[in-house]
Amino acid sequence: MHVLVAGSHGQVGQHVTAMLAQTDHEVRGMVRDEAQTTDVEELGAEPVLADLTEDVTHAVEGCDAVVFAAGSGGEDVEGVDRDGAVNIIETAEREGADRFVMLSSINADSPGDSPAELRPYLEAKAAADERLRESSLTDTIVRPGALTDEPGTGRVRTGADLDRKSDDIPREDVAEVLVAALEMEPTYGLTFEVLSGDEPIEDALADPLNQG
Amino acid sequence: MHVLVAGSHGQVGQHVTAMLAQTDHEVRGMVRDEAQTTDVEELGAEPVLADLTEDVTHAVEGCDAVVFAAGSGGEDVEGVDRDGAVNIIETAEREGADRFVMLSSINADSPGDSPAELRPYLEAKAAADERLRESSLTDTIVRPGALTDEPGTGRVRTGADLDRKSDDIPREDVAEVLVAALEMEPTYGLTFEVLSGDEPIEDALADPLNQG
Repeated sequence: MHVLVAGSHGQVGQHVTAMLAQTDHEVRGMVRDEAQTTDVEELGAEPVLADLTEDVTHAVEGCDAVVFAAGSGGEDVEGVDRDGAVNIIETAEREGADRFVMLSSINADSPGDSPAELRPYLEAKAAADERLRESSLTDTIVRPGALTDEPGTGRVRTGADLDRKSDDIPREDVAEVLVAALEMEPTYGLTFEVLSGDEPIEDALADPLNQG
Repeated sequence: MHVLVAGSHGQVGQHVTAMLAQTDHEVRGMVRDEAQTTDVEELGAEPVLADLTEDVTHAVEGCDAVVFAAGSGGEDVEGVDRDGAVNIIETAEREGADRFVMLSSINADSPGDSPAELRPYLEAKAAADERLRESSLTDTIVRPGALTDEPGTGRVRTGADLDRKSDDIPREDVAEVLVAALEMEPTYGLTFEVLSGDEPIEDALADPLNQG
C-alpha cells in the first residue's frame, strides 16, 4: 500500500514512519517544515511538505491509507487537532483512499476524567474521531493513555473502556499499535483504548474491545 | 483582612469562598458572569463583577489580600491564566494589597512531565508565578497535582519537588491549603507542590518545602 503518515516528524510519528519504512509499504511522511524533510528521509520515507490547515491534496493523492499522528501540542487545538484532522479525512475520502488509522486520546469522550485544561484538546479529538466514523473510510481509532518516552515493550492492553489503575504507555508501543492495526481486520471500524499491559500487540489487536 | 477571591465561582474557588466566609475576614468573591453572583452570596461573600482580561481595579480596591483561584479551563490560557493573572497581580501592587496566594499547578516549571497538550497552560501558569515572585506582594504559590472531586481529607504532603507516586488531591483540600496559607508566615515567599498525604494541612504548611 501507499501509506501517508500525517505528523511524520512528531514524537509518535517518527516511530510510525521508521516502523512502516521497514515494511514493504510505500511510505510518505508529511511534515510542515522544510527543515524536517531530511529527518523523514533518514527514517526511510519520502517526505512531503503540507500544512494540515491548508490544502493537503498533493500529500494524500495516490495514497491508499493515512496514519494520523499529527498534533498541535495544545497550540491550536481547534485549527489542527480538530479542523486539520477533518481536512485530511475529507481529502482522503475525495482522493479515494480507503484506510485511516487515527491516533486519538483516552478520555476523548469523557473530558471530565482529565484536567480541565485538557478539555479543549479532548473535545477537538472527539470531534475529529466522530467525523472519521461518519466518513466513507475504513477507520480505526486508537486512544492511548499518557504517553511516555520509555522504550516500547511490545505488550499492551486494549478495550472499549479500560480501568485506569495504570494509565500510561510508551510512544513506541503506541506507534506499533498504529502500524499493526493498519492491516488487521479485527480493528476495522473500531475505537478502542490502549495502555501498557501484558498482551503482545498482535494478540491484543485480534480482539481490541476485549480487555485481555 | 479584606480578601478578594478571584475565580470565586470556580471548582476550587467555591470551596475557598465558603471556607473564608466562615472566618472573620471580609470576603469579596469576584466572578465574570452576573448569573453567578447569587451563588457567591449564598457562599457567604460579597460578589463583585469583574473580568480578568479587563480593568479589575474596582474588585481589588480596598483589599489586603488576593486568593487567585481563577482559570480558563484551557479556553484562553494566554489571555486568562497568564495575562489575566498578571493583570490582577499588577492591580494588587498598585492598589496597595500586601498578600497574594496563587493557585498554580504541579509541573508548571517542568511541562515535559505532563501531556504535551497541557504545555501552553503550564507555561502560562509559570509566567504568572514568575511575575508574582518579582512583585512587591508577599506571595505564596501553591502547586497541586491532578484535582479530583473527592471529599477533602484535611491531610496532604507538600514539598519543593514531590515524588509522583500518587499525583492527585481533592479540590476541597487544595482550597483549605490556600485559605490556611493566607496567614501562615512559613508559607510567605514560597512556591511548593501539594498532593494528598498523611500530614494535617496546618502541620504541612508549617514547613512547606520539607516533604513531611
